[in-house]
Amino acid sequence: MSLKERINAANEEALRRIVAADPVLVDVAPAGDVIPGLEDRMILHSGPPVTWERMCGAQRGAVIGMCLFEGWAQDPAAAARMLAAGEIALEPNHHHGTVGPMAGTITRNMWVWVVENRAFGNRAFCRQVESFQQFGDHSPDALAGLEKWRDTWGPALGTAVRKMGGVPLKQLVARALLMGDEMHNRVVASSSLFANAVAPHLVVCGLPTEQVVSTLFYAGNHPFLFLGLSMAAAKASMDPVRGVEASTVVTAMARNGTEFGIQVSGLEGEWFTAPAPRVQGLLLPGWKEEDAGLDMGDSAITETVGWGGAALGGAPGILSFTGGTAEQALAFSRDMRGISTGLSPDYLMPALNFEGTAVGIDIRKVVHANLVPVIDTAIAHREPGHGIIGGGIVRPPMECFTKALARFAEKYQG
Amino acid sequence: MSLKERINAANEEALRRIVAADPVLVDVAPAGDVIPGLEDRMILHSGPPVTWERMCGAQRGAVIGMCLFEGWAQDPAAAARMLAAGEIALEPNHHHGTVGPMAGTITRNMWVWVVENRAFGNRAFCRQVESFQQFGDHSPDALAGLEKWRDTWGPALGTAVRKMGGVPLKQLVARALLMGDEMHNRVVASSSLFANAVAPHLVVCGLPTEQVVSTLFYAGNHPFLFLGLSMAAAKASMDPVRGVEASTVVTAMARNGTEFGIQVSGLEGEWFTAPAPRVQGLLLPGWKEEDAGLDMGDSAITETVGWGGAALGGAPGILSFTGGTAEQALAFSRDMRGISTGLSPDYLMPALNFEGTAVGIDIRKVVHANLVPVIDTAIAHREPGHGIIGGGIVRPPMECFTKALARFAEKYQG
Repeated sequence: MSLKERINAANEEALRRIVAADPVLVDVAPAGDVIPGLEDRMILHSGPPVTWERMCGAQRGAVIGMCLFEGWAQDPAAAARMLAAGEIALEPNHHHGTVGPMAGTITRNMWVWVVENRAFGNRAFCRQVESFQQFGDHSPDALAGLEKWRDTWGPALGTAVRKMGGVPLKQLVARALLMGDEMHNRVVASSSLFANAVAPHLVVCGLPTEQVVSTLFYAGNHPFLFLGLSMAAAKASMDPVRGVEASTVVTAMARNGTEFGIQVSGLEGEWFTAPAPRVQGLLLPGWKEEDAGLDMGDSAITETVGWGGAALGGAPGILSFTGGTAEQALAFSRDMRGISTGLSPDYLMPALNFEGTAVGIDIRKVVHANLVPVIDTAIAHREPGHGIIGGGIVRPPMECFTKALARFAEKYQG
Repeated sequence: MSLKERINAANEEALRRIVAADPVLVDVAPAGDVIPGLEDRMILHSGPPVTWERMCGAQRGAVIGMCLFEGWAQDPAAAARMLAAGEIALEPNHHHGTVGPMAGTITRNMWVWVVENRAFGNRAFCRQVESFQQFGDHSPDALAGLEKWRDTWGPALGTAVRKMGGVPLKQLVARALLMGDEMHNRVVASSSLFANAVAPHLVVCGLPTEQVVSTLFYAGNHPFLFLGLSMAAAKASMDPVRGVEASTVVTAMARNGTEFGIQVSGLEGEWFTAPAPRVQGLLLPGWKEEDAGLDMGDSAITETVGWGGAALGGAPGILSFTGGTAEQALAFSRDMRGISTGLSPDYLMPALNFEGTAVGIDIRKVVHANLVPVIDTAIAHREPGHGIIGGGIVRPPMECFTKALARFAEKYQG
């Protein structure tokens, strides 16, 4: 069998695994209880590995926030000193079967969504999405949001989800895609459907009425409620694709605001990185181009399963967040087909006459077509201390893919 | 001022009133308590006036069902005898400020959505949507659904809505249009958003837990939950447009399965009718073309406010129900502009780069362009006794518009 034939067969196997994934939300729980290897005085972060010294402003702000949230430091300056002194371990989420939005920071007392891929038995985790601390804002107000999630909403949702015996996500996501979600930055339909699915169970699981009502208000009005879920579902779907010998399928795209990194199935354990790119999009009122930080977050895991940029054609509502036209959104979805292994039989776009989204980004096709994936994303400030400042479209650096392909050739043509 | 100038000014006023509408759900209540002139032994029905003798099979089945529901007859044969003997009054919903889906049947003990147009102070009503009795099925199972709505879900939703001080619908509909609803046969997003909005209030209004949980399951899983609401909202929005002197704007399109009728602002109180057309679309498995009844229901009131057919371009998800392609759906929305008075500033279609839907169908433009409105609709059986059998696209008979325009010329050119 030629190498080309080996690669094609390996990529078909990778595609089969992605398509077979059956992500089910099984719990909401403290990260320290569920994430393997998450220790005390450790902060998981988004993207490839990065040191405190090289961290961008927003991620620095976020890790400072976690030191305060955990009570390891009493003020931001003390936290920064601890971090500079190396007293807090910093590790990528992806090294722990986990993903996190934007700065992606997770510590033991941060409650996370727990998604099980029932087709393969593996679990993945993601923290809840909010618009402040994960963008680098470590103010008391920002931390109060994390505390409310830890003390009220997370425990209530966990109780309901366990009582339900889990919430199957595959069909819910499929329905949401028919409602104009793309599961990365537009998750209004999936959030709404999920809130309705949980609501009656919340009422009968013995929680105080005040907590039930607060959680119903929270879940029924959070436009990004489902993003943490879709990220965990995507991570749970992609992890069984890791380590398929000779596969050129991308298993992760992740950014820490300093570097963009990708991982590839047949090159398990390696990162291929390049400087993080700038996001092209719309800024919220009051912010200027020079305020924006660079691309950040593990959320591009959604693009690896055929959501996000691959599904933009079916989700033109997102254009009010990212800019661009409906025609461009359709073109993005078509572009993604040219660099992917196949089409999803489950995740369909009515605007494209119910064709499936492109699945299984292939580093060969990216390099040969000279076309990188499209990712839609939020924008953080370049300095610590701010919430979300905008949203837009970003393209990964081609360098990540050329480096990966060169390493692939080295390993397999060796 | 020339007649043409008078008409243009009148239509601008009509458009202003449609756009200014502020529909708010204020109650869910027994029809007999709220609908003006709805008497005992009276059944309101969809479409223009029709006698028992001329009623189509599905509407006959539905009125028989209401006689059983109200306890006026003990079996279908006895009900049919009462109806044939003229013992039950039959009047159009539209003569009572009301609309109803498909057969549209409403009696005093049928609970209805009560929508107030807060910009003008008027109220409109619509019964709840289900898939059986309103299509002509009068079986015990079909009637059990009406009873559950009357005894459990309707009262619970009414209590919550009153506690909320009403649910504003304008913004909710605008959000749902961005999520691929068109507010006629695709209302999955609006239904989901409405269920989210009501849920926390349901929990704290003192109802038995069993009723709360049952209602949360019902509201959170009914794909047509919002259709009765969107119809009542459309009717409440259009009623202030009635009787604008010299306006050629259509205020209602309604069908009883025998005739299609329209009403026109400057010709208040008159109906312009023609034989009901056949629906082109998709039938559920097991049904054949010759099983299908003709076009039926008051639901085309949604098209008069710029939803339904006018919004199809933004709602390609509906094509799995109606058939057709995404390109045709976009073309329908563009077609509707050519026969309408203006574009909505509130109801936008992201797939058309956030352009507004066409509002204020003008009988002059319909006749001159030789282009009738597009309506998406469900399909009933031609005989009594069946639930929904399909869905599709229907075009009103041009004859309704030419008759109306001739009468308009007679009245205003004298």
